[in-house]
Amino acid sequence: MSQSQQQALAAYSGYTHFIITSPAPLVAHVEINRPGKLNAFYEAMWVELRQVFRQLSTDPDVRAVVLSGAGDRAFTAGLDVTAASEGGVLSAEGLDGARKAAKMRRYIEEFQGCISAIERCEKPVICVMHGISIGLAIDMSCCADIRVCAKDTRFSVKEVDIGLAADIGTLARLPKVVGSQSWVKDVCLTARDFGAAEALAVGFVSQVHESKAAALAAAVKTAAFIASKSPVAVQGTKELLNHSRDHTVEDNLRYTGVWNAAALQTDDVAAALMSGLQKMKPTFEKL
Amino acid sequence: MSQSQQQALAAYSGYTHFIITSPAPLVAHVEINRPGKLNAFYEAMWVELRQVFRQLSTDPDVRAVVLSGAGDRAFTAGLDVTAASEGGVLSAEGLDGARKAAKMRRYIEEFQGCISAIERCEKPVICVMHGISIGLAIDMSCCADIRVCAKDTRFSVKEVDIGLAADIGTLARLPKVVGSQSWVKDVCLTARDFGAAEALAVGFVSQVHESKAAALAAAVKTAAFIASKSPVAVQGTKELLNHSRDHTVEDNLRYTGVWNAAALQTDDVAAALMSGLQKMKPTFEKL
Amino acid sequence: MSQSQQQALAAYSGYTHFIITSPAPLVAHVEINRPGKLNAFYEAMWVELRQVFRQLSTDPDVRAVVLSGAGDRAFTAGLDVTAASEGGVLSAEGLDGARKAAKMRRYIEEFQGCISAIERCEKPVICVMHGISIGLAIDMSCCADIRVCAKDTRFSVKEVDIGLAADIGTLARLPKVVGSQSWVKDVCLTARDFGAAEALAVGFVSQVHESKAAALAAAVKTAAFIASKSPVAVQGTKELLNHSRDHTVEDNLRYTGVWNAAALQTDDVAAALMSGLQKMKPTFEKL
Amino acid sequence: MSQSQQQALAAYSGYTHFIITSPAPLVAHVEINRPGKLNAFYEAMWVELRQVFRQLSTDPDVRAVVLSGAGDRAFTAGLDVTAASEGGVLSAEGLDGARKAAKMRRYIEEFQGCISAIERCEKPVICVMHGISIGLAIDMSCCADIRVCAKDTRFSVKEVDIGLAADIGTLARLPKVVGSQSWVKDVCLTARDFGAAEALAVGFVSQVHESKAAALAAAVKTAAFIASKSPVAVQGTKELLNHSRDHTVEDNLRYTGVWNAAALQTDDVAAALMSGLQKMKPTFEKL
Amino acid sequence: MSQSQQQALAAYSGYTHFIITSPAPLVAHVEINRPGKLNAFYEAMWVELRQVFRQLSTDPDVRAVVLSGAGDRAFTAGLDVTAASEGGVLSAEGLDGARKAAKMRRYIEEFQGCISAIERCEKPVICVMHGISIGLAIDMSCCADIRVCAKDTRFSVKEVDIGLAADIGTLARLPKVVGSQSWVKDVCLTARDFGAAEALAVGFVSQVHESKAAALAAAVKTAAFIASKSPVAVQGTKELLNHSRDHTVEDNLRYTGVWNAAALQTDDVAAALMSGLQKMKPTFEKL
Amino acid sequence: MSQSQQQALAAYSGYTHFIITSPAPLVAHVEINRPGKLNAFYEAMWVELRQVFRQLSTDPDVRAVVLSGAGDRAFTAGLDVTAASEGGVLSAEGLDGARKAAKMRRYIEEFQGCISAIERCEKPVICVMHGISIGLAIDMSCCADIRVCAKDTRFSVKEVDIGLAADIGTLARLPKVVGSQSWVKDVCLTARDFGAAEALAVGFVSQVHESKAAALAAAVKTAAFIASKSPVAVQGTKELLNHSRDHTVEDNLRYTGVWNAAALQTDDVAAALMSGLQKMKPTFEKL
Repeated sequence: MSQSQQQALAAYSGYTHFIITSPAPLVAHVEINRPGKLNAFYEAMWVELRQVFRQLSTDPDVRAVVLSGAGDRAFTAGLDVTAASEGGVLSAEGLDGARKAAKMRRYIEEFQGCISAIERCEKPVICVMHGISIGLAIDMSCCADIRVCAKDTRFSVKEVDIGLAADIGTLARLPKVVGSQSWVKDVCLTARDFGAAEALAVGFVSQVHESKAAALAAAVKTAAFIASKSPVAVQGTKELLNHSRDHTVEDNLRYTGVWNAAALQTDDVAAALMSGLQKMKPTFEKL
Repeated sequence: MSQSQQQALAAYSGYTHFIITSPAPLVAHVEINRPGKLNAFYEAMWVELRQVFRQLSTDPDVRAVVLSGAGDRAFTAGLDVTAASEGGVLSAEGLDGARKAAKMRRYIEEFQGCISAIERCEKPVICVMHGISIGLAIDMSCCADIRVCAKDTRFSVKEVDIGLAADIGTLARLPKVVGSQSWVKDVCLTARDFGAAEALAVGFVSQVHESKAAALAAAVKTAAFIASKSPVAVQGTKELLNHSRDHTVEDNLRYTGVWNAAALQTDDVAAALMSGLQKMKPTFEKL
Repeated sequence: MSQSQQQALAAYSGYTHFIITSPAPLVAHVEINRPGKLNAFYEAMWVELRQVFRQLSTDPDVRAVVLSGAGDRAFTAGLDVTAASEGGVLSAEGLDGARKAAKMRRYIEEFQGCISAIERCEKPVICVMHGISIGLAIDMSCCADIRVCAKDTRFSVKEVDIGLAADIGTLARLPKVVGSQSWVKDVCLTARDFGAAEALAVGFVSQVHESKAAALAAAVKTAAFIASKSPVAVQGTKELLNHSRDHTVEDNLRYTGVWNAAALQTDDVAAALMSGLQKMKPTFEKL
Repeated sequence: MSQSQQQALAAYSGYTHFIITSPAPLVAHVEINRPGKLNAFYEAMWVELRQVFRQLSTDPDVRAVVLSGAGDRAFTAGLDVTAASEGGVLSAEGLDGARKAAKMRRYIEEFQGCISAIERCEKPVICVMHGISIGLAIDMSCCADIRVCAKDTRFSVKEVDIGLAADIGTLARLPKVVGSQSWVKDVCLTARDFGAAEALAVGFVSQVHESKAAALAAAVKTAAFIASKSPVAVQGTKELLNHSRDHTVEDNLRYTGVWNAAALQTDDVAAALMSGLQKMKPTFEKL
Repeated sequence: MSQSQQQALAAYSGYTHFIITSPAPLVAHVEINRPGKLNAFYEAMWVELRQVFRQLSTDPDVRAVVLSGAGDRAFTAGLDVTAASEGGVLSAEGLDGARKAAKMRRYIEEFQGCISAIERCEKPVICVMHGISIGLAIDMSCCADIRVCAKDTRFSVKEVDIGLAADIGTLARLPKVVGSQSWVKDVCLTARDFGAAEALAVGFVSQVHESKAAALAAAVKTAAFIASKSPVAVQGTKELLNHSRDHTVEDNLRYTGVWNAAALQTDDVAAALMSGLQKMKPTFEKL
Repeated sequence: MSQSQQQALAAYSGYTHFIITSPAPLVAHVEINRPGKLNAFYEAMWVELRQVFRQLSTDPDVRAVVLSGAGDRAFTAGLDVTAASEGGVLSAEGLDGARKAAKMRRYIEEFQGCISAIERCEKPVICVMHGISIGLAIDMSCCADIRVCAKDTRFSVKEVDIGLAADIGTLARLPKVVGSQSWVKDVCLTARDFGAAEALAVGFVSQVHESKAAALAAAVKTAAFIASKSPVAVQGTKELLNHSRDHTVEDNLRYTGVWNAAALQTDDVAAALMSGLQKMKPTFEKL
């Protein structure tokens, strides 16, 4: 899918670091747009990322989101270390240890909150990875609902190699998106590379494609398929699955009962059932 | 295993929608018995299902349970939508939104409770799936301890296609019975079909067999094997594993210590050790 | 890796049941040393095991640990049932049921605490299994961070076969280190054997090697690789991943922010970045 | 309030151990009716209690419930120990310790579930205590929303005096309905009596009255006042407060948002606002 | 304390609905400034409230905050119902029940988040109540750390009287800031008024003063006293107490250890100890 | 009660910093024995404290424990700051911030664990406070089950005054042992003194006595009373109440059912019932 085939989304034209287009009806495609620097992130970028996903979250014209990185070489190489060190967070001259820690903690929490916006987006997010996908790439993709990748993807939970424990979400979420903790500990403690086949085998991604283009096309196709369904059903499903991760079964069942008590008061059920009988594509109101 | 080879269980002869037999010593086989309607469920069925599993839970003559669907075509096609709409829950004329919601919430909670009876049954439950296994089929099978299936099984978390988020347990339990959340989100958000091989690859089922008959035979064999072991050990193991899912490791260790403080006061340990030395099959008292 | 190639660790020479050596810089190798009895455990052994891992936990000269069993036949055959029955815990003559239970509960909790010392060790632990690896072998290995095994390993969650529910950690941790709960329930309820290939397929181990020697060599290599990295980064990563298992994502993110607020005040980040630029191996201070 | 002033509730005439009347519009009064035995409970009584409160929970003609004990001498003297020992739960001849424990555990859980029905009742429950109010009296009253008592009430968490830890809810709920844990531990560990003034001082009850009659009249007045308000508002308030006890603030806020998303779609808000403007008593539809 | 005695805080001069001054060194005083309407809130106000407390949270020149309402008549009369109904949230013409619910849920969550900003403020907040303090007044004050009031305060958890369950935090927090749940349920279910003496007796407020002026003066004095102490100690104490509310003791101890591992690397301990020895007032760096 | 009236407990004669005697049958009295230094603590003392309470926890000859401080002036003045600074934990020359933090964290956790031994002691602990009771005095007393004090007691959560947030348990437990959080925040944030009357009013202590001697005598009397009752009942009650604090009601009910399934297999119930009928004092076996 070439960029030119996609329709620009006017409401998102003001962003600097991300290109937001619509490759299919009701689907938004968010591209990290710093290919010359391997899509590496600095602070202004993650602050903007939060804005983008907050807007998508309640945009009635969007029902599914695809997230990818511009260019051939990288989804993202993660944190732009040079920019970060210039930003001066790590240097905190003249402060005692406690005050340095307070400064750092506030910084990390703000950063985490920006990335978590992907997860908090009420619409499903499909993350397409290719090429270099390290560090922040893992934090970000763990916030997405579905992960697919190109065959050439080189993944790494890279943080240990620069002297720190990953703190923007990888250690919180990766153990909960794949099953094998022996593997999770291995890749997090060694910071070693792993490829698309390994990512598929352990269930980190659920599809591997021949190229970035193929992966993106598949993601858009899945997004469009999801976007064709009842948004009440789809958004409820995302919410209840996310709730499930952090609650007991009993708690989730209760929450589900309360959620669906309202959600079932929708015209979408009738529309869906009718379209099933009539073999027609249903139309659902905005949400 | 043909139905004729199985021994009817007198204590369960009064049920209408389920056939309960004993294909092996101390094993109960529960068959959903509405094959003409693809074993689709309506309210009276799930209410009865709860009764069946409550009775099995404390029946001293049952140590393991196999659950399957009658007929060649389906484990179950899920909710009988026609019956449900006639039941009138979705129509709540004259009520305001809050009162409709209260009515709906109570209904969902009652329904959830009926299906959860499979999980609450103190004896291990092996679910055998074949053919059409969609919607409620997933909710139900996630309550079982072990899932096996026939090669021809067609699974689907179907609810999104009828305009609703699955609310009888799939979204609460599926993310906790398989590892790959990318896959879980995919099948729940798209409502797409998946087959036996995929179910095995992601760990949703742990065995795939050539036919329903073969799957059922294997399940009965495993059930009989489990039933030959100490019921104190087996039922304790089920309880502690279920507790583990919803608690921290620390909490589960504590609970385990308290549980086994009583459970180890059993004659089964001596019986098991003795039979091991004597190469004889042990006999255990009822539980 | 033959034992002779390893350097004895003087600080650990006083232990009776374990041989502790250093097969690589900053790596400790703990060997269960009762090969004549298939490395089966009795009480004095697990009490000593706790001491060993507590010492390793804060030993500044150790950055990664490998745990294996001496001899060709077994990682460990688990609890030495003969010794246990002589120890008299199960016989509690003259006590009423409540007092027997109190005695048993205290015993189990003490035992659990000893094995949990492996998990509480602040340094990563790689467990190498081979031959007979049953019962307590599973409890212990689930406390390790990474599990690898030899092709010949015969695993079993054996406790049901001796009339009890596993109570030293397997039922608490196994469901959380692999994804497929159908498989977990299967092996825990049947006590059946499973081999290396199956263990790899479900993600219980992350590597299988041709022989015990090869598995051990690979483990030492990984341990040495981890030990070459920033201990601030490595130990933080272990801590945050373990915390993640038992907390919500939100909670873990908060904890992570507080943890890294101090951890980032390390010289290791600069050392790591510098070594990256200079293509030299960094040196990190003790921790 | 004499019994004669109350209106019998036809739908509840079939109960044996409880008299259910309506002392005020939309208010149900449940009286424990075994005054000759100090309202002591045996199994048939708590099983029936569950039925009563389940029926009240969804009875659209009931908006608040008052619970008290018949006769002058006791709210309830708790468990009828004689009946319990005849029931044979404590004797379990011929069973080993584990099987006795299983029998006992199932019995306790069933018993707990019956008493918890008071808490699960969707309508507010005001418990009126007088005279002897010991053992099960505390378990039961802790399930109520509001506790009031007569000046003559003699309370005791009595279980320790008969050789057991209270297991029907007092130890779970009492620490959560009063603030001072030093007091809670004192009365639970010593089984000493305490009176109305002490109960009020620590906040266990929120009103003390001169006599049982006065306490009952006050409770009915409060119940009637609550029953005059929007049932959507009242029942939601009870549910959200109970949820709050067992969840974090964050979790409760989320649940509240979902709950009220439906609850605010009620005509009651308009009715309440209008009646406020018009200084008239509003009328609310059934719930 | 008259407004004129207070020093305006330049950094906060841009706010519309709140007056922010500094009545004492390092203390900020936030006044709700809509006395003509009993300080009733509409949407723009709570959005601004969030901004104010976010700014205070990290303002190095503020170490304690006092929150009160302008004018003699009310701390706040809560939600401005007229403004709310004009805002149109409750009317959602043309939407089905599910879509109305989604709109409402997003609205509630946004509203909750604005009020929670008081709790999230890293500096201690002392809430001074007087006159009418109903509805949102309770939600807001429960977010503060310390509550004091004037003798004339009239409190009410008013929401039930307008047909809804309080959803901006009262039901989440009130049960956790006072001990007696019988009292909490009483005031929440009846919506009745209660006064200063009752609020003090149950521990909702910890001080009652003769007048608003006296209450405000006392609050400023306490705030100034807190502000004179180590901000590392004070802010850590607030954080750890808030964490405690929502976590187990074990969890909080762990979190505390990690928190103080950095916090103790402060010069404040030495400064505090030295000032103690020298009987001088210590000076602490900004935080 | 003078020390001379008490019987020395031989099994505890080896301790250095604590005097352990038996003032009544089955009661142990632990006295902090550094009156010349206001019973201030240094590291060797809290390490020994842990040993003392671990021994008491399983000592079959002890059924209740009283904890007090020797001398007239202080229960304890808390941490001996001079000793602490000499111990060198706060100075960590040459370490970077992360390594200082690791050292500090391990130190705090060890310290916390020693004090928590009071709470983990399976026998009820009654804490008697008098005179100076600040800092660690609050941490320690919050671990006890029941708190009583002399009229002259001067309490303070003192840590803020020395530049740190209390980290040995006060902030974890104080909010859970009293109801009014406004009061908790007040005393923790201001570090102000409070007296016996205030402590009683908020429920921090449950008795105030004229003098230390009277408080001690009352505590011994209560301890002896508790010790005269079934140890199965008493120890179970303590365990279940502590479990309740950190779990939901549902969870605690389940745990209680499992706990009592064994505990009810005691001869104590029969002994207690028989003694009740015969008006004789029952005798219970050791536990």
